Amino acid sequence: MTEDMQPSLVVAGARTAGGHTVDIVIAGETIAAVLPAGQGPDDCDRIDASDRIVAPSFVEGHIHLDKTLLGLPFIPHLPGDTVALRIEAEKTLRRTLALPIEERGGRLIEQITAFGTGSLRSHVDIDTEVGLAGLHALLRLKERYWDLVDIQIVAFPQSGVITDPGTAELLDVAIREGADLVGGLDPAGIDQDVTGHLDAIFAIAERHGVGLDIHLHDPGPLGAFELRQIAARTIALGLQGKVAVSHAFALGQIDDFEFGRTAEALAAARVAIMTNGPGPVAMPPVRRLNAAGVTVFAGSDNIRDAWSPYGDGDLLRRAQLVGYRQDFLADASLAHAFAMVTEIPAAVLGIEHYGIAPGKRADLVLLAADTLPEAVAGAPLDRTVIKRGRLVARKGMLMPRD
Amino acid sequence: MTEDMQPSLVVAGARTAGGHTVDIVIAGETIAAVLPAGQGPDDCDRIDASDRIVAPSFVEGHIHLDKTLLGLPFIPHLPGDTVALRIEAEKTLRRTLALPIEERGGRLIEQITAFGTGSLRSHVDIDTEVGLAGLHALLRLKERYWDLVDIQIVAFPQSGVITDPGTAELLDVAIREGADLVGGLDPAGIDQDVTGHLDAIFAIAERHGVGLDIHLHDPGPLGAFELRQIAARTIALGLQGKVAVSHAFALGQIDDFEFGRTAEALAAARVAIMTNGPGPVAMPPVRRLNAAGVTVFAGSDNIRDAWSPYGDGDLLRRAQLVGYRQDFLADASLAHAFAMVTEIPAAVLGIEHYGIAPGKRADLVLLAADTLPEAVAGAPLDRTVIKRGRLVARKGMLMPRD
Repeated sequence: MTEDMQPSLVVAGARTAGGHTVDIVIAGETIAAVLPAGQGPDDCDRIDASDRIVAPSFVEGHIHLDKTLLGLPFIPHLPGDTVALRIEAEKTLRRTLALPIEERGGRLIEQITAFGTGSLRSHVDIDTEVGLAGLHALLRLKERYWDLVDIQIVAFPQSGVITDPGTAELLDVAIREGADLVGGLDPAGIDQDVTGHLDAIFAIAERHGVGLDIHLHDPGPLGAFELRQIAARTIALGLQGKVAVSHAFALGQIDDFEFGRTAEALAAARVAIMTNGPGPVAMPPVRRLNAAGVTVFAGSDNIRDAWSPYGDGDLLRRAQLVGYRQDFLADASLAHAFAMVTEIPAAVLGIEHYGIAPGKRADLVLLAADTLPEAVAGAPLDRTVIKRGRLVARKGMLMPRD
Repeated sequence: MTEDMQPSLVVAGARTAGGHTVDIVIAGETIAAVLPAGQGPDDCDRIDASDRIVAPSFVEGHIHLDKTLLGLPFIPHLPGDTVALRIEAEKTLRRTLALPIEERGGRLIEQITAFGTGSLRSHVDIDTEVGLAGLHALLRLKERYWDLVDIQIVAFPQSGVITDPGTAELLDVAIREGADLVGGLDPAGIDQDVTGHLDAIFAIAERHGVGLDIHLHDPGPLGAFELRQIAARTIALGLQGKVAVSHAFALGQIDDFEFGRTAEALAAARVAIMTNGPGPVAMPPVRRLNAAGVTVFAGSDNIRDAWSPYGDGDLLRRAQLVGYRQDFLADASLAHAFAMVTEIPAAVLGIEHYGIAPGKRADLVLLAADTLPEAVAGAPLDRTVIKRGRLVARKGMLMPRD
């Protein structure tokens, strides 16, 4: 501790993932010191964290703050058998909603930050009907909730780029107005033009020097082909480490030859894969991808919206679901599932000062479990959440905010 | 209401799955009347159920009360790549446990009844090492917790019948001593003798006039062949409607021809299928099986035991998981997922007096949701549980018992 860092809060007696029992000394928004338990100062606020696991806050790798229907009475799902039909169903519903994005998205932020999420990447629909209204709402949410969560925004062409002319221009404006990344969607399945779609979105990313996060549901060898196209463009534009592909079901649907060359291409381009542990479809095989050098992180995706009635944004439970789907049973595997909602997305999102060490930001979550693997297996709801050095939630309830 | 049924409790203002708001009048252990809200008597105990969905108690289709490690510190999973290796790992662990089955199983019963489970089917390991000790423990649990849950017991040859000589005789004794059904396990995968295994267990069932519930993990066309063998024996012995197969992953792993003839055989023999919505493997396609006339019900299976660190026995969340895995999105599908943990297993287990109607037993659960589909999608933990006409749990906590 340097002298200009007066301790403001001590998280006392917490167990780390590594099994050490520590006092975490916080000064303002920052971790000032991590000391053996009992050695922290007692002349400042203290949180008793004995019998708790302490971890850095959860990092949400994929959410849609603008889509959620939270705050409204439960709305039955409108069946749509294809992605295109679901897009139309959502647009129809969107025109009738009694609550604006800011209200619904705000509810979702309050819900997930109470679970322990401290940073998130949200996609926001950009199309020629909604224009930039969703982006503007998210920018306001980002400001309104700056004390609870750090928000990264992906300008997401949910209705396609080629099939909805004018969208590319909107994406370009979106980046200028504050979106952090360019999105994309099924170049084949939605836009019917792999080259045209990818050329358009990569051009915008190149122009502004930003990364991309592309939704890809296209299946099997088609999706794998698109993944290799994305990897090649990533290298051509020097965007290694700045591109992610969300879902990429194809990686769970191809033979060894296709998998091998596709994983190799992704690893070479440092393209990361996001999975939400999907229910009805095959998912990217996490351990096989890791072994090939590909980063895989997790996210919630849809949370009670026109796409799905499921989901609550609890990333500890999401880690549990991903682990369950991937047969992660041993402690090391459960810990890896946890990393998929913490340190791995933190690296993908480029979050600085992430972790539990002096100088890192004091974004922490305390979990009622004896070990980290137990926390993943059981997903206990009894949590304490600290954001920017301040206690923000206990037992799933947000504290009053100023 | 007849005059000899004095109302003892009114569940007032509850919404049924069908959307009616009712007063449920209970006399002793029985539902005496279901009246329009406001018409129930007010001179007896009342539970305010306004803003609650009322449903009959959950029915657990598949659990292992003897296997759970609840009550012990979290025990890391011992990896085992095959079913046979996992069986050995479990036996090794079993010899060292500091808590007896009755303590661990009792904890599990208390946990799941607080979630809303009112009846269950538990398998119990029978082998030449453990003998009937597990059965005896479960029989004691059945007596000790008679007021919270109705227990049906399957004598389960976890180590095989042919490969563990003497087990068939133990299964026979188990039925005489109080087990309700004969179990089985992977006739090919474990016993390497489809005919020998099935002959042995069906002979015991025939001798005692009881049903069977057979674990089947064997994959693809092999598992499908075994399913047809089971169906044929079921018809030959007149056991239609009394046989279930648990897991039956094979049904999710075969082509249309194999699926068609296997589903047809199961339907003809009225063999029901139990699924827990497995994580890493294909699962039986619920709607396709239903369309072919096959009953599919749900269960929790392993709950923090040597087989899996996951699971908590919450059947509302299990319905959610099954629905998520099966892409059940629309209200009717979510309601079907709910039926898979209520009325469908109630019929499979042969539970009499099940449901919400005069004369049925007052085994009820109240859920904090506006509609039943919303309850499945969100799995709210705020519940009120009534068993045999008595309030037994609120908000996940059991009431003190006499």
